[in-house]
Amino acid sequence: MDARRAESFSDGVFAVAITVLVFNLLEIDTGDHAPALTYHVLLGLSWPQYAAYAIGFLSIGIMWLNHHTMFAHVARIDRVTLVLNILLLMGVVALPFPTALVANHLTGPAGPARVAAVSYGVVMIFISLGYTLIWNWIGAHPQTLTVRPVRSARTIIAFNGGLVGYVAATIIGGLVSAAAAVGIYGALAVYYLFEHLPAPAARDAEGTGTGPGY
Amino acid sequence: MDARRAESFSDGVFAVAITVLVFNLLEIDTGDHAPALTYHVLLGLSWPQYAAYAIGFLSIGIMWLNHHTMFAHVARIDRVTLVLNILLLMGVVALPFPTALVANHLTGPAGPARVAAVSYGVVMIFISLGYTLIWNWIGAHPQTLTVRPVRSARTIIAFNGGLVGYVAATIIGGLVSAAAAVGIYGALAVYYLFEHLPAPAARDAEGTGTGPGY
Amino acid sequence: MDARRAESFSDGVFAVAITVLVFNLLEIDTGDHAPALTYHVLLGLSWPQYAAYAIGFLSIGIMWLNHHTMFAHVARIDRVTLVLNILLLMGVVALPFPTALVANHLTGPAGPARVAAVSYGVVMIFISLGYTLIWNWIGAHPQTLTVRPVRSARTIIAFNGGLVGYVAATIIGGLVSAAAAVGIYGALAVYYLFEHLPAPAARDAEGTGTGPGY
Amino acid sequence: MDARRAESFSDGVFAVAITVLVFNLLEIDTGDHAPALTYHVLLGLSWPQYAAYAIGFLSIGIMWLNHHTMFAHVARIDRVTLVLNILLLMGVVALPFPTALVANHLTGPAGPARVAAVSYGVVMIFISLGYTLIWNWIGAHPQTLTVRPVRSARTIIAFNGGLVGYVAATIIGGLVSAAAAVGIYGALAVYYLFEHLPAPAARDAEGTGTGPGY
Repeated sequence: MDARRAESFSDGVFAVAITVLVFNLLEIDTGDHAPALTYHVLLGLSWPQYAAYAIGFLSIGIMWLNHHTMFAHVARIDRVTLVLNILLLMGVVALPFPTALVANHLTGPAGPARVAAVSYGVVMIFISLGYTLIWNWIGAHPQTLTVRPVRSARTIIAFNGGLVGYVAATIIGGLVSAAAAVGIYGALAVYYLFEHLPAPAARDAEGTGTGPGY
Repeated sequence: MDARRAESFSDGVFAVAITVLVFNLLEIDTGDHAPALTYHVLLGLSWPQYAAYAIGFLSIGIMWLNHHTMFAHVARIDRVTLVLNILLLMGVVALPFPTALVANHLTGPAGPARVAAVSYGVVMIFISLGYTLIWNWIGAHPQTLTVRPVRSARTIIAFNGGLVGYVAATIIGGLVSAAAAVGIYGALAVYYLFEHLPAPAARDAEGTGTGPGY
Repeated sequence: MDARRAESFSDGVFAVAITVLVFNLLEIDTGDHAPALTYHVLLGLSWPQYAAYAIGFLSIGIMWLNHHTMFAHVARIDRVTLVLNILLLMGVVALPFPTALVANHLTGPAGPARVAAVSYGVVMIFISLGYTLIWNWIGAHPQTLTVRPVRSARTIIAFNGGLVGYVAATIIGGLVSAAAAVGIYGALAVYYLFEHLPAPAARDAEGTGTGPGY
Repeated sequence: MDARRAESFSDGVFAVAITVLVFNLLEIDTGDHAPALTYHVLLGLSWPQYAAYAIGFLSIGIMWLNHHTMFAHVARIDRVTLVLNILLLMGVVALPFPTALVANHLTGPAGPARVAAVSYGVVMIFISLGYTLIWNWIGAHPQTLTVRPVRSARTIIAFNGGLVGYVAATIIGGLVSAAAAVGIYGALAVYYLFEHLPAPAARDAEGTGTGPGY
């Protein structure tokens, strides 16, 4: 079974999930009780909405990017990979919810802020597990699923590193400080922005499989 | 007429329908009367929303998976298949509605819970009929539509088995118990998760057509 | 410029527009004033919502079908076709709005019902004009845009017939009866369901161009 | 890495963003305080909603068109282009928000109207910068990313001209008149409608690279 429709469906889900984030912005100036539109209302009172929009958009965008990179290694796809992919997408689509919770509560009382920070971390752990499971599954079937073998010590460390980071941030968010947790979430997003999956050039070049880090 | 655009359009519809489910989550912490955000509010009071999200996501995901498998058998597509596909998608897109009804009423009074359980079953029967009609139509035109003949006693039993199950569960939901009906719905979802359509490897391998179950 | 991305973008727009229709259903059982869920509430009071959902879904589905058929004739695409396609999609995406107006007002007082019927007709005229303009444009450039010449007396009559029908129904809806107009809209939808564009088999068969009706 | 999935994901995001605009229309006849449906309510009171829908749809449609044209030059895609594309899409998805602000406030008091006009300009500047950055990046890597070299004095002037126009209109909107700014926004949309990127026929024709303007 080729991976084309799984990529097409995933692209659609990522595209809709990333666009759901704009609905928070659309609510800024609506409702019977909305104050008159001034720069103060649009910027001073509403900046957490823009921050949530930007963070959410970049996070889902980076996830799409890594999904793209990961599936560039997939030559054929099986039913297990498809089911794992649906579970992964279940986490991605849910992300706008904890993102909104963090945006609405981070600057408020400490209790709700921590609850929001923990909820964000739980969804990110779920998503990280999804990527790890898919990568391990396709890596364990080099003959049938991937363009060439993809498992390496470096990749395993990279994935587990991200997962450990999200677990640690979630614990810190629940016990210590929501702001500290959000700072770690941001650092982890930047970490994933810099490529840590082997480059999918393998599909084009059909390399020897002896390159560094593979 | 090749099936590419029908798949592309269907993937888009599945992707949007599956993402609609997150709007229920986004409403958990909004509104003027929303209580302060605590773990109790986020988990204890809102678990039916998460259950509905997970069940709805898996159900539509499995449907996409089987749509994917079914269309992998389609070599060319005709106008009848396209119209049947639109009717099938009409059921898929509607599913978030009875899913929300079940989630909101399952733990409440018996009357509304049964109404919700029946509404879910009716939509699932509609969707099952859609799959059965498409499969029968393409199976009845092996020369023009499919990669190779796909009808078999096993497949017909599998489809009718699912349909009979949904009809039975709907009757039980209306007359006996909403919870029992929901239990059967869950069992049927697991049933469809395990592949019962012949593997679409046929498209790749161009097999002899004498494999088991075809 | 090849037509692939225009089809992909159009498929996405059709897919989202067709899914927007479910939001009307999701509102049936929400709100502080929603009555207890009974079969009467779900069916007796809400049937116009289901009718609007089914009519809207079939209408947009048929439009996608004919878009699919029309673009199967397009070998290459130019900037004019792309701009006309955007105008066509502007009408398609707007359709859920007059569809909801008709559903909410058809069984009410005659005045608002006529306004709703006229608004539906105006959007359908806009969409019909979009299809006619695209078809005429690609038909007028057989060397550069289409697989083979597509203009024929039969096709022109078919398109103009539909357009005249929508204009007539809109006038009847505004002056005589909303119900009569809706009846004509339904008949025109069935008319477009039966194929009136030449079959796009031309792309596959690369025929002689002498087939009937071309 | 080939550009197919980046185009597919972008098409999905454009498609959802352009469809979000219809939600403003759906609110015209809803709510407990909605007046009885007359031609006056549907046209006289609601015309800014239709104007916003049409302007927003055309603006996002034109952006998709130019995205389409730009990526037709891209032979291969790298991680920097993908990240820049996500930033560009972040602006595109946000556009329905300032579009709604302009529609709701342009005919009202001068203060909020200017705030709305400035917010629209800021998002358009963000989007213009995104296109300029992507075009410059792929133009600076002709060996690896593009079908053939694309930089030219004409193109650079065209891009910078649009950007200067949006900055000027934003300043005018903030200091002088919201209506004047909106007029310039409209003129710039028409400017971008007429093609100013070199025609992507290059991909098909594999020309000599000596054509005018390249």
